[in-house]
Amino acid sequence: MSQATGEKKLLVDVCLSPLLYPAYHRPDAIVVVIDIFRATSAICTAFQYGVAEMIPVASLTEAQSYKDRGFMVGAERDGSALEGFDFGNSTTTNGTQAIAAAKQARQIVIGSFLNITALCNWLIQEQKEVILLCSGWKNRFSMEDSLFAGAVSERLSTASSLFNLGDASLAAKYIFESAQHNPYRLLHGSSHKERLAALGLKEDIKYCLSLDKTDVIPVLRGDVLVKLAF
Amino acid sequence: MSQATGEKKLLVDVCLSPLLYPAYHRPDAIVVVIDIFRATSAICTAFQYGVAEMIPVASLTEAQSYKDRGFMVGAERDGSALEGFDFGNSTTTNGTQAIAAAKQARQIVIGSFLNITALCNWLIQEQKEVILLCSGWKNRFSMEDSLFAGAVSERLSTASSLFNLGDASLAAKYIFESAQHNPYRLLHGSSHKERLAALGLKEDIKYCLSLDKTDVIPVLRGDVLVKLAF
Repeated sequence: MSQATGEKKLLVDVCLSPLLYPAYHRPDAIVVVIDIFRATSAICTAFQYGVAEMIPVASLTEAQSYKDRGFMVGAERDGSALEGFDFGNSTTTNGTQAIAAAKQARQIVIGSFLNITALCNWLIQEQKEVILLCSGWKNRFSMEDSLFAGAVSERLSTASSLFNLGDASLAAKYIFESAQHNPYRLLHGSSHKERLAALGLKEDIKYCLSLDKTDVIPVLRGDVLVKLAF
Repeated sequence: MSQATGEKKLLVDVCLSPLLYPAYHRPDAIVVVIDIFRATSAICTAFQYGVAEMIPVASLTEAQSYKDRGFMVGAERDGSALEGFDFGNSTTTNGTQAIAAAKQARQIVIGSFLNITALCNWLIQEQKEVILLCSGWKNRFSMEDSLFAGAVSERLSTASSLFNLGDASLAAKYIFESAQHNPYRLLHGSSHKERLAALGLKEDIKYCLSLDKTDVIPVLRGDVLVKLAF
């Protein structure tokens, strides 16, 4: 319920699938794209280790066209690397489609557990509306992306009474709070974790759930991801 | 994780917006349409009080065409009754659009807190896959619909190890468990509840959250909702 002080509240909401983005779009909101397993975790890691620019693309055709022009290109489908490309999951299907879905946003940044504190501190300073855009899995709900969205919702609402959580943001916060002391328990039955575990990627899962490995916030400038200067 | 007994697991999942239905559709699943505030609560109540048939329509044009042919017609937009129709929220925007979205389903039934026990007992007997389809609010996530989906997920998974909860179903169960002892607390900050409260509908909210007022399970036969015979 809004307060009687007259101060303008800043809506924080969670969009649980790229397909729903048009229903959540607000012209003044910063959009945080989330694909914990593993696009946005991989993107944060790449910048931390010295990559200067990344170009996210939503389709294999686009990826192939960059490869033909001499770029180093990564591509995956269903969690596995695709033959003929330089890397596997450096770019991934769901995450890059989420970036494409939010193209009309005023600003798009990349979030993961690996940069969560830097990201939250920056969002708190910016004092703008926030849409936490979960990439999901083939347009469906994803537990790990929602868990991260809930962690950010909890931090923002605790840090400043200016932030007002929307329904999905409140729900994500409840999910995060159920899992807070043991995210592995919450993810135990989650489908994408099982898919990755079946591919022998248990160490990747553990890494993607670790906090604050970097202060980098990747931001989209035109079609290119660069480090946010702040 | 599936068990080693070889028994076939039945997926229970939650589709959090009608827009996402195509990503959740499974040909053998029973779809439970949920619009707690207030289409599916109103539909259950109407059958309980003697209505024999209801025709859900997704647009005002269709509603008007039935009215022109002598039917009694209800219509609303944004929670208020529309002028020129016989009732207000007997049919409502989001719920009827969810029914339309799931038209390809093998079977569509109507769920609300008012018929939750009858519904769950029937689903447990049927031993089919289940999609809990939340109507949401203008294609966005709705707290009250998710809460109900979580309550059903919890009951099905407790009743039979045949049911296997998908990610969204697990998440809805966590939301429900956070709220179990006081759903009003969870809904306190929820946007649709505030919209209805602003329209003077607090008694409606309370009624829609009460359990087991009826054993009726409305089911779609062709284009018409009737009582399920069982």
